[in-house]
Amino acid sequence: MFDEALTRGQSYENLRVLCKQIGARLSGSPQAAKAVEWGVAALKAAGADSVWLQPCQVPHWERGKPETGRVLGAKNLGNVPVCALGGSVGTTGKLTAPVVEVRTFEELAALPAERVKGRIVFFNRPMEPRNVVSFASYGGAVNQRGRGAIEAARRGAVGVVVRSMNLRADDYPHTGAMRYEDGTPKIPAAAISTTAADQLSTALKTTPDLRFELRMSCRTLPDAPGFNVVGEIRGSARSQEVIVVGGHLDSWDLAEGAHDDGAGCVQAIEALRLLKNHRPARTVRAVLFANEENGTRGAQEYARQAKLEAPRRRHLAAIESDAGGFAPRGFGIQGAPEAVQRAQAWRPLLKPYLVDAVEAGHGGTDIDPLGELGTVRIGLSPDSQRYFDVHHAATDVFEAVNRRELELGGAAMAALVWLISERGL
Amino acid sequence: MFDEALTRGQSYENLRVLCKQIGARLSGSPQAAKAVEWGVAALKAAGADSVWLQPCQVPHWERGKPETGRVLGAKNLGNVPVCALGGSVGTTGKLTAPVVEVRTFEELAALPAERVKGRIVFFNRPMEPRNVVSFASYGGAVNQRGRGAIEAARRGAVGVVVRSMNLRADDYPHTGAMRYEDGTPKIPAAAISTTAADQLSTALKTTPDLRFELRMSCRTLPDAPGFNVVGEIRGSARSQEVIVVGGHLDSWDLAEGAHDDGAGCVQAIEALRLLKNHRPARTVRAVLFANEENGTRGAQEYARQAKLEAPRRRHLAAIESDAGGFAPRGFGIQGAPEAVQRAQAWRPLLKPYLVDAVEAGHGGTDIDPLGELGTVRIGLSPDSQRYFDVHHAATDVFEAVNRRELELGGAAMAALVWLISERGL
Repeated sequence: MFDEALTRGQSYENLRVLCKQIGARLSGSPQAAKAVEWGVAALKAAGADSVWLQPCQVPHWERGKPETGRVLGAKNLGNVPVCALGGSVGTTGKLTAPVVEVRTFEELAALPAERVKGRIVFFNRPMEPRNVVSFASYGGAVNQRGRGAIEAARRGAVGVVVRSMNLRADDYPHTGAMRYEDGTPKIPAAAISTTAADQLSTALKTTPDLRFELRMSCRTLPDAPGFNVVGEIRGSARSQEVIVVGGHLDSWDLAEGAHDDGAGCVQAIEALRLLKNHRPARTVRAVLFANEENGTRGAQEYARQAKLEAPRRRHLAAIESDAGGFAPRGFGIQGAPEAVQRAQAWRPLLKPYLVDAVEAGHGGTDIDPLGELGTVRIGLSPDSQRYFDVHHAATDVFEAVNRRELELGGAAMAALVWLISERGL
Repeated sequence: MFDEALTRGQSYENLRVLCKQIGARLSGSPQAAKAVEWGVAALKAAGADSVWLQPCQVPHWERGKPETGRVLGAKNLGNVPVCALGGSVGTTGKLTAPVVEVRTFEELAALPAERVKGRIVFFNRPMEPRNVVSFASYGGAVNQRGRGAIEAARRGAVGVVVRSMNLRADDYPHTGAMRYEDGTPKIPAAAISTTAADQLSTALKTTPDLRFELRMSCRTLPDAPGFNVVGEIRGSARSQEVIVVGGHLDSWDLAEGAHDDGAGCVQAIEALRLLKNHRPARTVRAVLFANEENGTRGAQEYARQAKLEAPRRRHLAAIESDAGGFAPRGFGIQGAPEAVQRAQAWRPLLKPYLVDAVEAGHGGTDIDPLGELGTVRIGLSPDSQRYFDVHHAATDVFEAVNRRELELGGAAMAALVWLISERGL
């Protein structure tokens, strides 16, 4: 499988088509619909015995015109790179307010009410650079993005500006999902590039009364139709047991969703292609999930249907690739300790391909709801150093993907599916 | 050390200066001399107790004007991207000849004499894509570049064109060292991009009598002065035992030598900086070797001096980084089986930093001659998938380096030096 992937692998060419002919494909967008058609065709071309769609209703948010952010009243700082966070309300013209900078919700809570009321809260806690696995740093910073608008609005703020989830200093704002809650005002929420966040923080030290001006025309429309795309190879001996390989088909709207998560989609499709000729004992399904980024409706729908078919089909394991198309290093296994140990026993088989870092870990957002069915959830673990350079930003383009790194990931998934298929887990 | 490298690491900024203020630094060039000055200053800034130069004479080859290559008589193929191989003679005006394509020296030897005589031999064996570690593929293809001109000239050829040592299809020719031998004519030798190599091969199938035109104005000048740059932290307890960390300061002339081997130099300097405050028991030397690319005169001179000082200073171990500034995965150990086992026993200590792939392997070209002194030679093993995209080509620029990947490599070297320094090997 690795030989085939490194010589005639299809992941890279599939990704090129998805990125360059369709591009960004946020839930509800015309491109998301095109991506579904692409997925059906790609799974058929890969040799799926059957391909079907699972409809679900997905959130539909639109960015509108490019956002602008401007610092008023500070020397040497004017326009700064910003973008709306996904799900945010717009500004209805422009929003201008003084700024208060905090690093944590605790710091925000400790401020006197008048220091927050009527202001824009600037959440500026950087991702922790010391974690070797960058996802740990994401986990430690992302509540500012996800919940910052709620916490700020509860205290009377009129908007939030959040430091981008990015480990390097650059000029790209990184979008991503944010939430509101019932009963609390919905205030506009934007991301600001890491470099501009540092500049704004510096400016605030000398000019605490500077003001920030934000223009965003984003809006939420009624829910729209979305679809999981499922392709299956029926198992040759134990077809009633299912192994899923998957990624999510939707992407944020600022780039091409190459690493997040076009890579996972083409790797899942490739895994199916690589397995096809080997006639795996168990049923293998490649699933291109809808709406991971801002709703996980596809994940919920897949799990709902998996429950319905549980009497006839048991979901033994699910492997997701949603950590970028970088050089694979192994797998994170989420399940009973016995399952982790069984997978770890295969490390010598995986070592020649340098994908033998098999550890207890996180499966993936789209396969998470399958946990209720006792499914072992497995995440492909690529090297994580470059992921947040591109994650949810304009930099997540096809050119940022290396062919061999991408193809090795698909082969690694196929190899693990094969082991589970033939040996159980 | 990892925390320091990931928060305040100096490798990346040092590399920026080396790449952007000095750039390409082939042996004998003015930039090579500037790089020596840079190295002295950088080692002092990193906290070396003493810094010195080791003079040696190095080959001095110049590319001259950019080369041109042209296919004559084939449809849809004209100018193609070529560059002289390092050490080649020029073409004295233009060289035009029919082409014969071969994949191996054996294939060349089996051809009738008249199929080679007066022709340009086109060596077109691709790097093997199936090796997961790309260096194995380099080893399997590079004899075409190194020895192709000798083998072709022995059979009466007038020039050679060699497929670039590159695992991807692109338009960049990759240079690199080639050799002549006494008593055999010195014929011009060029590299051609992988894409153009494929096109030329296709064209030859339909137009076997096409001709290739090559213009190269490169030449070899008298040997020039070169210098190893050595910075030392004197051991606090066992200063008579030396551990070397190194990379090579010279680079090919087509780009900035960012991965090859600016990365190794800045990592060696950083390792010294990271170790400085810990007062290692044994003496640590960061060595920026001269002339790895086309002569290894620096390596020979360092080993010669190490032999001279052997009665007073024992070279216990040497670690080289010369495989690119990519995410480190471990180390290759070249030495007695006991030394390999001892290093492997440290894997649990290295695992939190994901650099625990410790295997018997190759140390490095610059530290190889220290083997005669019983020194354990160790190579840093970064992920190898992207290396040959940039190796010896115009693509080897600072922008192709990721800060965190680079800094982790320097920290990994420092960590291993520390273990050896405090525990022996």
